Amino acid sequence: MSKLYEGFTIEQLKERKIEIEKKFEGFKNKKFTLDMSRGKPSVEQLDLSNGIYTQTLQSGFISEDGIDSRSYGVIDGLPEMKRIFSQILEVSEQEVILGDSSSLNMMYDTISRAFNHGVINSKPWRELDTVKFLCPSPGYDRHFAICEHFGIEMITVPMDDNGPDMDMVERLVLEDECIKGIWCTPVYSNPTGIIYSDEVVKRLAYMRTKADDFTIFWDNAYVVHHLYEEKKIINILDECKAAGNPNRVYIFASTSKISFPGAGVAALACSIDNANYTKKLLSAQTIGPNKINHLIHARYFKNIDGIKEHMKKQAEILRPKFEMVTHMLEKNLGYLNIAKWNNPKGGYFISLDVPEGCAKQVVAKAQEAGVKLTGAGATYPYGKDPEDKNIRIAPTFPPIDELKLAIEVLCTCVELVVLDKLL
Amino acid sequence: MSKLYEGFTIEQLKERKIEIEKKFEGFKNKKFTLDMSRGKPSVEQLDLSNGIYTQTLQSGFISEDGIDSRSYGVIDGLPEMKRIFSQILEVSEQEVILGDSSSLNMMYDTISRAFNHGVINSKPWRELDTVKFLCPSPGYDRHFAICEHFGIEMITVPMDDNGPDMDMVERLVLEDECIKGIWCTPVYSNPTGIIYSDEVVKRLAYMRTKADDFTIFWDNAYVVHHLYEEKKIINILDECKAAGNPNRVYIFASTSKISFPGAGVAALACSIDNANYTKKLLSAQTIGPNKINHLIHARYFKNIDGIKEHMKKQAEILRPKFEMVTHMLEKNLGYLNIAKWNNPKGGYFISLDVPEGCAKQVVAKAQEAGVKLTGAGATYPYGKDPEDKNIRIAPTFPPIDELKLAIEVLCTCVELVVLDKLL
Repeated sequence: MSKLYEGFTIEQLKERKIEIEKKFEGFKNKKFTLDMSRGKPSVEQLDLSNGIYTQTLQSGFISEDGIDSRSYGVIDGLPEMKRIFSQILEVSEQEVILGDSSSLNMMYDTISRAFNHGVINSKPWRELDTVKFLCPSPGYDRHFAICEHFGIEMITVPMDDNGPDMDMVERLVLEDECIKGIWCTPVYSNPTGIIYSDEVVKRLAYMRTKADDFTIFWDNAYVVHHLYEEKKIINILDECKAAGNPNRVYIFASTSKISFPGAGVAALACSIDNANYTKKLLSAQTIGPNKINHLIHARYFKNIDGIKEHMKKQAEILRPKFEMVTHMLEKNLGYLNIAKWNNPKGGYFISLDVPEGCAKQVVAKAQEAGVKLTGAGATYPYGKDPEDKNIRIAPTFPPIDELKLAIEVLCTCVELVVLDKLL
Repeated sequence: MSKLYEGFTIEQLKERKIEIEKKFEGFKNKKFTLDMSRGKPSVEQLDLSNGIYTQTLQSGFISEDGIDSRSYGVIDGLPEMKRIFSQILEVSEQEVILGDSSSLNMMYDTISRAFNHGVINSKPWRELDTVKFLCPSPGYDRHFAICEHFGIEMITVPMDDNGPDMDMVERLVLEDECIKGIWCTPVYSNPTGIIYSDEVVKRLAYMRTKADDFTIFWDNAYVVHHLYEEKKIINILDECKAAGNPNRVYIFASTSKISFPGAGVAALACSIDNANYTKKLLSAQTIGPNKINHLIHARYFKNIDGIKEHMKKQAEILRPKFEMVTHMLEKNLGYLNIAKWNNPKGGYFISLDVPEGCAKQVVAKAQEAGVKLTGAGATYPYGKDPEDKNIRIAPTFPPIDELKLAIEVLCTCVELVVLDKLL
């Protein structure tokens, strides 16, 4: 963004400001209430999975292996659903542990276990004065919230089109033993939509770290969430094994955005040693996850091909929304040189960068006009975007006509704030 | 048990020993595999709830209040299911937080939060050198496993027919600031089946404790699990409030033994201040529990009357099993003066006391004959029954003919071990 409103004269800008202010008042008077704050699937998307409950239990509650899914036990989840996650994540079935619905909860619990008992072959993090995590940003606010909750010091690492700035990552982990982890959303990263390059994945797996118990929290939330053709990255667990660091990574995924956000199946994957260690600790916490939910998911989706088929239907619903948003941004802001955004090929978000120092005001203005966006700064550690420029757009939930309106409001607010700064 | 085999001569005992050994060999040769180790509902009991999945979703996934149960959010669970638990536990709806399926998991998480953040208005327990819990025993092995997991020192407190020995409890909590909690299963206690007297409940609520953050973990697992008429105890939360200690108690319950052990709904109840504190911490851990599971449970059971009706059907299945076991114990061991047991009016267990130093051997002998019982000692902290005399019988899972056989084997093993000691 070399020069904002490049080619406009001051007079033209002044005129435009009057116009934009009028437009903004017009929106305000319409008293919308549009919510684009969270990455929630739309009702239409959810409807695709209703059959999970109605089409799967005609043959009863007994699993392939004769497990009564209604009863206690099976701490790592029902084998047929483990198999599907092993296909999704390209790991062995023994490397998968299923949970209840929330992969966030599995991430939280993994960190909680690290604090109370340590990761494998290490001492409990609670015995340390300081624990630090690397937080590639912009990133996922709930990752950062877990760090805040446990008092983990967060170090912001910038992202480029290939993933986190690996020169910085490598330098930091080599010099500071307190750095115990990194958060990664490697495929269709939240919110930038970028996909980690193979080189980045390899460097994460192979890099030397001062802390022996440095752990990668690999949130593969959008691994099958393609809007167009399938995109693949190399397998982090394979790379970690090849690098002699098999216990370095915990991978997380869920069907939250495949079936139901509040009632899907979550999973983690890791080395067999890590899996055994985790199951041992888990056995004090629970007798096992909800296996009926595993059973009905396994019967509904059958295997990776069933998942892929289903995700194509999801993409058909989502693609027009994403394309409309980027089209509207281009149409409204493209010629003004006041904003940048990505054109994601999958995932759940569009990341919008406005001029420095403007994001908070834009979000506040949009709220004034009835459009609720994710709080500015939420995509950074401690909720503080150092340049106050990133805005996360979550286009999935609203119907497309409402979404169009919301983006019009947003574009108007961007102009309003930028013009106000300029004049 | 004043004198074992009272009235028998040495010769008679010797003859009997030969008989019993023959009987034991006979059982061994039949190569049974009977499992009575865990308190699992039988298939017949589970079948009572199959309709939860097939009869509830005709009217869709939207709750009474318009919440889409498929989507994210609602950290404390779906209101209509909160209402049912508020009726079961006789607390207000605002005092209930629903979880996923496992109340054990909610207990674990509550203690995990206490370690990492403290209970309300206290400092994190992880900052203390020593944390101790009172463990009325015999009790539930998984409570004790959570303590071991967190390194909590367990103090065994004996139980009588009214609950824990309250003189001892009051003395200990008054003198030792490290004692931060007590485990209680107040209704049909696991495994003794006793029901806490009103006086015990009141003394727990009112007693002075050296630790300000002393907390009662009130596992009301069997609150509606009556085999005969309904038994009620006074409400611990009400008593704690009346005593000026509203934040002293966390109550836990679940539908694990109402609907499905592996796929029910768990809940905790506590003061509104505790509930708000808990929800605040929970919000870092999860976006919310499985609300579809809440919805289908709420629609299936409707209200407390639906629960009671359902539990009567459960009782009809269970009563003959419990009565058969106590009848067989009476018939086989009653006249020998070598064992004591309870006749529970509800819950999931029968507690059998054999002569001191015999329990481990009895369980081992039963295993030899193909009958798997809960490990001897499991009902005591650290798995160590100081007198090695308590055996937990879990009569719910096996079909009644298998159960009868298992109890015959058990009785034979009791005699075998006792006669071996005597002669």
